[in-house]
Amino acid sequence: MHVFYTPDIDSSEYSLNEEESKHCLKVLRLGRGDVVNLIDGRGGFYEAEIIGESKRNVQLRITQSVQEYQKRNHHLHIVVAPTKNIDRLEWFLEKATEIGIDEITPVICERSERKIIKEDRLNKVITSAVKQSLQAYHPVLNPQVSLTDFLKMEHNSVKMIAHCIDGEPRQYISQVLEPHQRYIVLIGPEGDFSPKEIELALQSGFKPLTLGNTRLRTETAALAACFEVNYLNR
Amino acid sequence: MHVFYTPDIDSSEYSLNEEESKHCLKVLRLGRGDVVNLIDGRGGFYEAEIIGESKRNVQLRITQSVQEYQKRNHHLHIVVAPTKNIDRLEWFLEKATEIGIDEITPVICERSERKIIKEDRLNKVITSAVKQSLQAYHPVLNPQVSLTDFLKMEHNSVKMIAHCIDGEPRQYISQVLEPHQRYIVLIGPEGDFSPKEIELALQSGFKPLTLGNTRLRTETAALAACFEVNYLNR
Repeated sequence: MHVFYTPDIDSSEYSLNEEESKHCLKVLRLGRGDVVNLIDGRGGFYEAEIIGESKRNVQLRITQSVQEYQKRNHHLHIVVAPTKNIDRLEWFLEKATEIGIDEITPVICERSERKIIKEDRLNKVITSAVKQSLQAYHPVLNPQVSLTDFLKMEHNSVKMIAHCIDGEPRQYISQVLEPHQRYIVLIGPEGDFSPKEIELALQSGFKPLTLGNTRLRTETAALAACFEVNYLNR
Repeated sequence: MHVFYTPDIDSSEYSLNEEESKHCLKVLRLGRGDVVNLIDGRGGFYEAEIIGESKRNVQLRITQSVQEYQKRNHHLHIVVAPTKNIDRLEWFLEKATEIGIDEITPVICERSERKIIKEDRLNKVITSAVKQSLQAYHPVLNPQVSLTDFLKMEHNSVKMIAHCIDGEPRQYISQVLEPHQRYIVLIGPEGDFSPKEIELALQSGFKPLTLGNTRLRTETAALAACFEVNYLNR
């Protein structure tokens, strides 16, 4: 079944925009009477029938709708330093969306080599993963922020920071996490957080995490946290 | 600390090959007296000092050695259909190596669009992930095989197959797995295994798995299985 992302859906009829109309007719070769799925990114999952078509405009009538489709039983917010090679962050966004994530904040740290990201592009990656994995909720990508500013904000969540300093006391997520809560997990850049940044996070109530005894890349660590939190909330 | 992969190490001295010698001297700018790590891929993790250097040859003397370095407490063999876009399989190999995997077999299924892989290239991806994540054991990449041939072989392992057919009885890995065993997990191609293939696997003693309620890409499913098995063997 073909899926379209329609965040602006607000009635029982909907018109695909020009680009998606062309895609629908020319690429997917669909036409009047064919049925497609729509996702609004806010928990709405729809079945719709093509009731009209012109080159630039495909009209749909919604035949079925489910709200809060596969609503998640917790809220996961991963705060991750953008990787030097942006493909690795994009890869993380795709995979995290497939596995289950609610919110992502790119965070700039002392040792971050990349300090600029293209939000539009990253959101496109998330949207296509949302469609591909049939998720009714679109993860929220927040604007990037510096770690120090992020730590100053109020966060009504279980707060955790994954770092790589051996010898320091660290726990597994499974030792820290209570199910069905809101969670924030901080993941550092290549080269890890600085000791000063870790100290600051601990002072702000973040619990120190280990994700295992192998050395993980930034995007792998972020996804490992994603897997573990989702697993523990099954 | 710089790491070199030296599968042929067999004494207290070792010479890097021409390519690695150049890399060591020109790129890493190391020289006599500098210390590096060596990994033999069979559990050996070494510290070695540069005792001699010429343009094409760097001689090392091993100063410390650990055997069975971070030996894993289980054996995970993922049997996965190569993805249409080979980058996705390579990405899986990198991530699975970081997270922990022992054996990978590319399997060709009824719905496989890709029927040929380049073993050398895939092994390079694994080796660089081994070095990057400081693993002393090099995961084994087996030659590709057809699913029907694979199912005919004897496997002394807990055998599982992840498929996407809703309604069919399926369990989570956590419901099937006993810790510290040998495991095989079958992961299908884009478009999933055919019903006939699933039937054949079940008849061969494979337990049907679900990896969650979202639709995962082949490489994401394979990595999810990898995470869950490693998590359950912590």
